[in-house]
Amino acid sequence: MKKEYCGLFGVYGHKEAARMIYFGLYAQQHRGQESAGIVTWDGETIREQKGMGLVADVFNERHLGKELKGSIGMGHVRYSTTGASLIRNAQPFIVRHGDLRLAVAHNGNLVNTYELRAELEQNGSIFQTTMDTEVFAHLIIKYLHESDTIEEAIAKACNRLRGAYSMLILANDKLIAIKDPNGFRPLALGRVGDKYVFASETCAFDLIEAEYLRPLAPGEMVTIHENKLSTMRFCECKKKSQCIFELIYFARPDSYVFGNVVYEQRKAMGAMLAKEAPVDADYVMPFPDSGNYAAVGYSQESGLPLELAMIRNHYVGRTFIQPSQDMRDFSVRVKLNPVKSMVQGKRILIVEDSVVRGTTIRARVKKLRELGAREIHLRVSCPPIRFPCFYGIDFSSKGELIAANHPTEDIARFMGIDSLHYLTIPGLLDSVVDDNAWCLACFDGNYPVPLSDRMGKDCLEASPGIKKESCI
Amino acid sequence: MKKEYCGLFGVYGHKEAARMIYFGLYAQQHRGQESAGIVTWDGETIREQKGMGLVADVFNERHLGKELKGSIGMGHVRYSTTGASLIRNAQPFIVRHGDLRLAVAHNGNLVNTYELRAELEQNGSIFQTTMDTEVFAHLIIKYLHESDTIEEAIAKACNRLRGAYSMLILANDKLIAIKDPNGFRPLALGRVGDKYVFASETCAFDLIEAEYLRPLAPGEMVTIHENKLSTMRFCECKKKSQCIFELIYFARPDSYVFGNVVYEQRKAMGAMLAKEAPVDADYVMPFPDSGNYAAVGYSQESGLPLELAMIRNHYVGRTFIQPSQDMRDFSVRVKLNPVKSMVQGKRILIVEDSVVRGTTIRARVKKLRELGAREIHLRVSCPPIRFPCFYGIDFSSKGELIAANHPTEDIARFMGIDSLHYLTIPGLLDSVVDDNAWCLACFDGNYPVPLSDRMGKDCLEASPGIKKESCI
Amino acid sequence: MKKEYCGLFGVYGHKEAARMIYFGLYAQQHRGQESAGIVTWDGETIREQKGMGLVADVFNERHLGKELKGSIGMGHVRYSTTGASLIRNAQPFIVRHGDLRLAVAHNGNLVNTYELRAELEQNGSIFQTTMDTEVFAHLIIKYLHESDTIEEAIAKACNRLRGAYSMLILANDKLIAIKDPNGFRPLALGRVGDKYVFASETCAFDLIEAEYLRPLAPGEMVTIHENKLSTMRFCECKKKSQCIFELIYFARPDSYVFGNVVYEQRKAMGAMLAKEAPVDADYVMPFPDSGNYAAVGYSQESGLPLELAMIRNHYVGRTFIQPSQDMRDFSVRVKLNPVKSMVQGKRILIVEDSVVRGTTIRARVKKLRELGAREIHLRVSCPPIRFPCFYGIDFSSKGELIAANHPTEDIARFMGIDSLHYLTIPGLLDSVVDDNAWCLACFDGNYPVPLSDRMGKDCLEASPGIKKESCI
Amino acid sequence: MKKEYCGLFGVYGHKEAARMIYFGLYAQQHRGQESAGIVTWDGETIREQKGMGLVADVFNERHLGKELKGSIGMGHVRYSTTGASLIRNAQPFIVRHGDLRLAVAHNGNLVNTYELRAELEQNGSIFQTTMDTEVFAHLIIKYLHESDTIEEAIAKACNRLRGAYSMLILANDKLIAIKDPNGFRPLALGRVGDKYVFASETCAFDLIEAEYLRPLAPGEMVTIHENKLSTMRFCECKKKSQCIFELIYFARPDSYVFGNVVYEQRKAMGAMLAKEAPVDADYVMPFPDSGNYAAVGYSQESGLPLELAMIRNHYVGRTFIQPSQDMRDFSVRVKLNPVKSMVQGKRILIVEDSVVRGTTIRARVKKLRELGAREIHLRVSCPPIRFPCFYGIDFSSKGELIAANHPTEDIARFMGIDSLHYLTIPGLLDSVVDDNAWCLACFDGNYPVPLSDRMGKDCLEASPGIKKESCI
Repeated sequence: MKKEYCGLFGVYGHKEAARMIYFGLYAQQHRGQESAGIVTWDGETIREQKGMGLVADVFNERHLGKELKGSIGMGHVRYSTTGASLIRNAQPFIVRHGDLRLAVAHNGNLVNTYELRAELEQNGSIFQTTMDTEVFAHLIIKYLHESDTIEEAIAKACNRLRGAYSMLILANDKLIAIKDPNGFRPLALGRVGDKYVFASETCAFDLIEAEYLRPLAPGEMVTIHENKLSTMRFCECKKKSQCIFELIYFARPDSYVFGNVVYEQRKAMGAMLAKEAPVDADYVMPFPDSGNYAAVGYSQESGLPLELAMIRNHYVGRTFIQPSQDMRDFSVRVKLNPVKSMVQGKRILIVEDSVVRGTTIRARVKKLRELGAREIHLRVSCPPIRFPCFYGIDFSSKGELIAANHPTEDIARFMGIDSLHYLTIPGLLDSVVDDNAWCLACFDGNYPVPLSDRMGKDCLEASPGIKKESCI
Repeated sequence: MKKEYCGLFGVYGHKEAARMIYFGLYAQQHRGQESAGIVTWDGETIREQKGMGLVADVFNERHLGKELKGSIGMGHVRYSTTGASLIRNAQPFIVRHGDLRLAVAHNGNLVNTYELRAELEQNGSIFQTTMDTEVFAHLIIKYLHESDTIEEAIAKACNRLRGAYSMLILANDKLIAIKDPNGFRPLALGRVGDKYVFASETCAFDLIEAEYLRPLAPGEMVTIHENKLSTMRFCECKKKSQCIFELIYFARPDSYVFGNVVYEQRKAMGAMLAKEAPVDADYVMPFPDSGNYAAVGYSQESGLPLELAMIRNHYVGRTFIQPSQDMRDFSVRVKLNPVKSMVQGKRILIVEDSVVRGTTIRARVKKLRELGAREIHLRVSCPPIRFPCFYGIDFSSKGELIAANHPTEDIARFMGIDSLHYLTIPGLLDSVVDDNAWCLACFDGNYPVPLSDRMGKDCLEASPGIKKESCI
Repeated sequence: MKKEYCGLFGVYGHKEAARMIYFGLYAQQHRGQESAGIVTWDGETIREQKGMGLVADVFNERHLGKELKGSIGMGHVRYSTTGASLIRNAQPFIVRHGDLRLAVAHNGNLVNTYELRAELEQNGSIFQTTMDTEVFAHLIIKYLHESDTIEEAIAKACNRLRGAYSMLILANDKLIAIKDPNGFRPLALGRVGDKYVFASETCAFDLIEAEYLRPLAPGEMVTIHENKLSTMRFCECKKKSQCIFELIYFARPDSYVFGNVVYEQRKAMGAMLAKEAPVDADYVMPFPDSGNYAAVGYSQESGLPLELAMIRNHYVGRTFIQPSQDMRDFSVRVKLNPVKSMVQGKRILIVEDSVVRGTTIRARVKKLRELGAREIHLRVSCPPIRFPCFYGIDFSSKGELIAANHPTEDIARFMGIDSLHYLTIPGLLDSVVDDNAWCLACFDGNYPVPLSDRMGKDCLEASPGIKKESCI
Repeated sequence: MKKEYCGLFGVYGHKEAARMIYFGLYAQQHRGQESAGIVTWDGETIREQKGMGLVADVFNERHLGKELKGSIGMGHVRYSTTGASLIRNAQPFIVRHGDLRLAVAHNGNLVNTYELRAELEQNGSIFQTTMDTEVFAHLIIKYLHESDTIEEAIAKACNRLRGAYSMLILANDKLIAIKDPNGFRPLALGRVGDKYVFASETCAFDLIEAEYLRPLAPGEMVTIHENKLSTMRFCECKKKSQCIFELIYFARPDSYVFGNVVYEQRKAMGAMLAKEAPVDADYVMPFPDSGNYAAVGYSQESGLPLELAMIRNHYVGRTFIQPSQDMRDFSVRVKLNPVKSMVQGKRILIVEDSVVRGTTIRARVKKLRELGAREIHLRVSCPPIRFPCFYGIDFSSKGELIAANHPTEDIARFMGIDSLHYLTIPGLLDSVVDDNAWCLACFDGNYPVPLSDRMGKDCLEASPGIKKESCI
């Protein structure tokens, strides 16, 4: 099973389409650093450029200015998970069928890939990758033979999918955007001048000075063709299940996702934390940059001063030479260094946005203790993460979930802190807009789209706490 | 004339000397990104590795583990100014003379290079670079012939120098640290286990878990030989002239420089700003990351809430593809994006640590206006920079000094802000520890070490405001 | 239409399979410099490493020592033609279908790709590339559903193909080698120790010290499974049509291809030239390295001395900086420089192995004239190339065929030479072993496998001289 | 002690000077692959670009088109010997002294470097490298103070040097060429249009279509200033001692060196070999490409046919992945593969241009034996190399000299050959033009310029056969 964070960007009818896409991906680089790809329709066929690495490394001026011709196109950035980081898995995924050139860029994760794939193979399909996206492309072609339009074929194909999928599809000169009926992952519509654009997050619109229009609705398909927009519902939305983790952690704070301002939502979570679990401390401090905005909210609600006394080394990249063996916790220390005089004798309240394994926090706390901190309290602006996500967030890439297996007091002891409080689920829902629209499966194990077959079986074995009825 | 920011690091007697130096430079990367170099004494000769670019790019495991043999060594990072970014100018600078191998790493800038050079050339010296450091190396060899020890030769050579210089010198198996008699630039002594280390800033000590002992005194020479430390004054300090800009802007906030905690000094400047020029605003906001700590100080003193509503793209490197021509202010926008909902209708007080040309601030202010900011006030945590620095800070690399030529009200108008206040010189001195130890030449034109000859003439022409008596 | 030279190498049961394949490709690098790929069967799945460029650039020690696990595998090098030099077109081509992992490496060119593709698309197949190989993989899967073994499915699929194909197929733990019923392209069987190997040319065997056993027969399929070899005829060979251009030009002189020693065949062609068209000259000279061996043959038959007076610059790579505009014929001159004193006043007989556009020869002749050559005669060791090849040799990548449109005397005049003789077709057949086994289509337009549909139509338009009956 | 092969190229007054130099070095790449450098005089100062690696890798279009401004300049390629392959040792070597900018490019080796250096250090000089060239630059500056012109200073400096030196010197807007009084190393004068050029070998002239005028005379200094040529003798030539190894092995066969055509000289050596040591063989074969031209000469003189049956892999670069351990002699085999059918049962006469260690030949002979060669005879077109060279040829980089320590019959036995003959010294002198102008020290130990001090002592210890009177 393969999980994917991703960022999408599409544009229709812009004379510098490839350049727009480039910057649209650049602004969403935080959504995926493993690979990047851009495709354009040049009037006859689909052109493509894909590569491993960051957007700035994959594309050059020649790509944008010359090779990626055309005014219609889209791009994709993909997150680096462990294992199969292969160029063949880079997106958008392209197929040819007769005169149709089809490119698909996908953000999310399906839960019935195995069954679909088996069914297609029964009918003779062959696969070159292990991606959901290839299965989806096969389905579209399959239904194309019994459909009048590509949109109809896509709608039929979508109705076979189960899981999370926000997608952009380039079908010759049509650009099509889709959001699954639960609305798991964000996808927004915008406009630059009189040209339509799509992006996972609106920070991409800001960079190219596009105007944000609205999020796609769950189950909606938007088609842009000859610069005109049409929309349809390919499936009814019974229950919105937006990924609340986008608000908590994943999206950029300057983005709108699902129509909400991420920055303000994070401040609200921090403020709620201050109400739920006040503490007498000298000051509030985030571990930059993860807890920054919740810490601002906590400070404003509690009246405790905010300090920014953990200093980042701005030049830390992903690679440096190994330290000598007696340099313990080096990788933690190299990123953030506390201001010593701010720690000695102080009661420090730390705000973090999430805890996965807890080992990094533990190392930082240890360092603060060595520097003479008197008290250290931790406030986490989301509930304990106890269950795996099957809709596109790969917690396991950060290791085991400490909260799945340990009560809060044990975690506090493990981290060496004086007190620990996680935001409660009701507190979280109180903090955000529209308290009935969210997927909370990672907190409570209620999976809005049931898992099935192998995936269900695998997950039941791996996480006994998951409710049986979550699996078909 | 060539100005240089730089970072130094030295270690004596450590079994992993090269690795220690590597990390000592890594932590000080903000002091110089143009080139990096490490030298070690292997018992017979000096080994070296230098290259253009960041520490992480210049050195590899083979360099540290195999080639840079020896337990004594030092390194240097150099700032990128415009123009002659040549590998030949990378430091440490190495010369050979008989059995003596000498390496010199220099932070600062001399003001009598021309005269010294002319004098040496009269006596037949030839030069391969334009660096101060090569002149200094020639002087040492010259005086070596009339001295009993290398320390004596260095002391004599230093007494010929005028200007700012903190230096590390590797002379075969001796490691020698020097600070000029005015003490312009920082240099600190520390200890890791029972081995001595030197660094420009103490954040380097933190990374390798070394203990900070003390700053070098102005006019002091510290020699480490056979693991023993000896110290001497090679010149009397008449007047401390520490570079206050290290506190305001240049040093890392988690460092001690000149014995002061940078973080706290910056907060104090921000607090003083709040006293000098309060304003009725909805919140205080820094432009990250330059104004962060002064903004914290301002917020705490004024009681106005602190917001962090300018969001950085964490993936912005130095190169990206050019935007299309109608994307104005792109380079400003790509780095920081405001949270729109936090700007609309708000009265915003911005705190910045310094203003050089003012054009970036102007572009950001314009963007905030477009997003509907009601009022925008700017508070700058240092006095107006009106004069060039000849002791090692290259303001001109940031372009012209707006404050040298324009009154404050004009600058405010240029930036499009509602009010502007610079911290006063008395306010600045009140904020920092030891109000009589600082070089303020960039603010008031009083140059503690007189310029001379060509440099003096050049500077008088370029900056008519400089007092004549500053030049010999 | 896409033409491909390629080199194949496969090995079964060798503990260092990937390394063997690496060197097998390395020795055949002349057969393809665009991309290289290796796949191995690791016991569970197929591992792959592919990349653009030379073998030495695509693979590293980690690939061979760690990632390409398994004792069974094969590799492919591909020629650089103009245009779509994409990583996605690199081979071997891999597909998954249920538990079957299938990799295909192809040398040759099919002439009924369009029809096969259209038929498959009718049944819902989708394609990611424009390669013949993908069509073939689809066919195998299609027939797998009506076959008992993979061999049977492959045989059925092969019977649908028309054109030239020597292929290696890795089907889980089986390694299968195929040669088309006409036997267009070489493929040889060998043994290293007690393990079987396959290669396009036997120079690959020499490098790894494998023993050459025999060429595959036209229409033969050889399967290696559990270290045992079995063979079958999947199609009857009505008429051998081996590519004589492999002997003339393409293969390495130290190779056996189709069972013939290339070096000796080339000497024989040169000797036949001397019989067909003797001339009174001072010496015989090849343009290195293309005409070397025919020149040796010519010299020995004629008794004229051989000189090697065109000197190569051994450091000429593919890229160098552009010369200034007044340096005419620079690219010709930079590769070969004549020894002046050997040219002045001399009657020179040049032997070349083939002439495509003639412009390079013309430039060299011009240079020799400038240096004072008295007479220049050209002898070409193959007949005039008048027709395009549809079976895998891309003459057009070298530009237009001068002999297709011009009589010999015009060509001689164009080149500025005193006499010109092409080896006659009977002379060529006399020179080689087995005078009835060869495809001569590029000389006489008799295409042994009829072209069809679009390809046929395209070719008739482009080359009116092609006989109609060559096209279905 | 450091030996250096090198190639020089200079041009005066050409509007595309840097480009001319680039191609002049490109054509002489065989003279040095370690580093390359170009300097130009831009009217105010000397510009430079140097780097490790091949000419094509070190320079790019920006360097030639923009940075290396000016119409006067020169370049240098340097050979890779073991050890200190440092960028700091790349040439041309540049120094500044007052308004003088001086660049020196050196081919050769001095034998009194130690004494000169010691003397200069006594007077306070410091050195950054271990190169002869730096010592020479110091001397020029030293004598400049007692000279009226730079030429005079250079002449005085040259009269202090002992050893081999062909040099180009750029002194502001003068380009000066020098050859030592013995004339050890080649240096030629040419003209492209009406502009003067210099090169080590005339193949550089051919590439840029310059005309070869003449070699420099021993002890001659040629100055080009304001497009005018002047010449002087700075020292009398008592005895020409041209390096005969340039003819035998080192220079390109299409070059003139010392006024001789290398190609013809090599053929003459091969012909002389045929006279001195005929043998009854089936054919003559060189090991490409070293023995090619002597083999042509041998074949023509003896009447034995020439075969080119050792086939090179044209894609062998310097790096490939290590073969498995049971692949003996792999590195030998990968470069050249014999045509098997040409070896089986044959009596083969091999011609080589020189033998240093003999191990490669031994491995090739072994392979030929395995393939069934009946007899193998070796003829070497130079006398046995018994003594080290101190004038710029680094035999030791190829390992020990087998002929220094073993009689011919032992060498033949070691190589596994049926007969071995080295060209005799009289035979060699008979083959070449002007039999009294050559340095034969590597054959007979008579060093035309006596070694001295440390170098002499070192060499006596290392090579006891050297006559005492060769050392001062």
